Amino acid sequence: MTLALTRDELAEYLHEVFPQIRDDFAIDDLSPERITMRLLTAERHLRPGGTVSGPSMFALADVAVYAMVLARIGKKALAVTTNCSLDFMRKPEAGRDLIAECRLLKLGRVLAVADVLMFSEGGTDPVARASMTYSIPPA
Amino acid sequence: MTLALTRDELAEYLHEVFPQIRDDFAIDDLSPERITMRLLTAERHLRPGGTVSGPSMFALADVAVYAMVLARIGKKALAVTTNCSLDFMRKPEAGRDLIAECRLLKLGRVLAVADVLMFSEGGTDPVARASMTYSIPPA
Amino acid sequence: MTLALTRDELAEYLHEVFPQIRDDFAIDDLSPERITMRLLTAERHLRPGGTVSGPSMFALADVAVYAMVLARIGKKALAVTTNCSLDFMRKPEAGRDLIAECRLLKLGRVLAVADVLMFSEGGTDPVARASMTYSIPPA
Amino acid sequence: MTLALTRDELAEYLHEVFPQIRDDFAIDDLSPERITMRLLTAERHLRPGGTVSGPSMFALADVAVYAMVLARIGKKALAVTTNCSLDFMRKPEAGRDLIAECRLLKLGRVLAVADVLMFSEGGTDPVARASMTYSIPPA
Repeated sequence: MTLALTRDELAEYLHEVFPQIRDDFAIDDLSPERITMRLLTAERHLRPGGTVSGPSMFALADVAVYAMVLARIGKKALAVTTNCSLDFMRKPEAGRDLIAECRLLKLGRVLAVADVLMFSEGGTDPVARASMTYSIPPA
Repeated sequence: MTLALTRDELAEYLHEVFPQIRDDFAIDDLSPERITMRLLTAERHLRPGGTVSGPSMFALADVAVYAMVLARIGKKALAVTTNCSLDFMRKPEAGRDLIAECRLLKLGRVLAVADVLMFSEGGTDPVARASMTYSIPPA
Repeated sequence: MTLALTRDELAEYLHEVFPQIRDDFAIDDLSPERITMRLLTAERHLRPGGTVSGPSMFALADVAVYAMVLARIGKKALAVTTNCSLDFMRKPEAGRDLIAECRLLKLGRVLAVADVLMFSEGGTDPVARASMTYSIPPA
Repeated sequence: MTLALTRDELAEYLHEVFPQIRDDFAIDDLSPERITMRLLTAERHLRPGGTVSGPSMFALADVAVYAMVLARIGKKALAVTTNCSLDFMRKPEAGRDLIAECRLLKLGRVLAVADVLMFSEGGTDPVARASMTYSIPPA
């Protein structure tokens, strides 16, 4: 198992295909079966009370799995999410980045599956869990 | 089964508790077990190519179920999503509002469950399916 | 949208490929986008107290979606479940068959998606909800 | 975090409340946040070709999470599954036990959430992934 893209190549490609979320996410760490991504929490991601919104948590999990898949298969912008399940378990702490730890469970010819635990930075209890299936376009 | 809030009361309350999404959603229709909500699709909801983003679809399903639950139990801002599953089935059509048809399947003392089909306005094939569980705070 | 198999052809084929569940399920109704299947509830499907077990509910939803997909694409035993989400909402009534109402939401080249509501026979409130994705083998 | 039941007490209690699955499952390992359970694969769990059936995989994940929750909260037979999501990723190997590695992600007053990876004994790639929510009855 080897990476098709380095962390820098991956970051650059994500910025290229999703320019509108350029300031939302950063890649903390990347290995062949794991990626750690960060939501750079800003006002636009919050609900009243200062907690990160559900859609922002979904977006973080989704981009983490997308990035993990691309890191392995290379630049294929057309990979699409087909299924997602999410458990929201605790309120994220106000004013903290949200950290997603993603592991790749399957990388098939047609489908990829990964799961994600999300933590408020510095916290030890997960605030949310996600699993995602991506459909990979034919070569 | 009767509604605790009329459509107008519900719309007003959603605007009050979620001022930041005031221009994103509208309630098309409300009955004791169904609600139809609309994503007022704008530039900020789109991905390259003009298709509605995954987080925006999640947000539409989530607000539809939240609104359905509040319409029945009254103004309890603290109801929170605990679980969500989503299937993304087709690409939404560019430049169209997204319509969510939500039905309430269970309204218990502690948990509420609803499902949602989402359509591009005027389309007949669902672009996505969601089911959501909300946890209801004790009275 | 037309059916590739009649109800009788479908029932016969299911018995042929899954002989071990021959006495567990029956097809009540079939149309191009819907199927109604029945769990012929017996002692082996029950938990203490007489309620249908979770695995039996999963099995009913799974076979309903499998049957729906085969009814449309014809005899392809190799279609496999790739994802399932289930909400268990009410306790099934003891001593009743369980009825699954399945609707086909997407039938693509590679993936099929359907959802299912399950009721105790004669009941009006769903006891469980399921959505399933099947992967369809290349022709 | 301490266990309310030892492995032996837990095994005994599961046999008592679910006598009909007594020969299906065994507890390999238990700690305050993890449990490893085993499906003692037998003819009745198989599909044609010798692979473990979907309902048997669901049952293994479900009993693992139930056992994990009971190990922490003590003998409360009434804890019930409210939600489950499953990804079936690879075909289990014929003639092998199936091993479930479960971790407890949240143990709240009302809801518990855990996830599970399932492996054919001796295998390194997960055959399935599950997440489960249990509702805990009031004390």
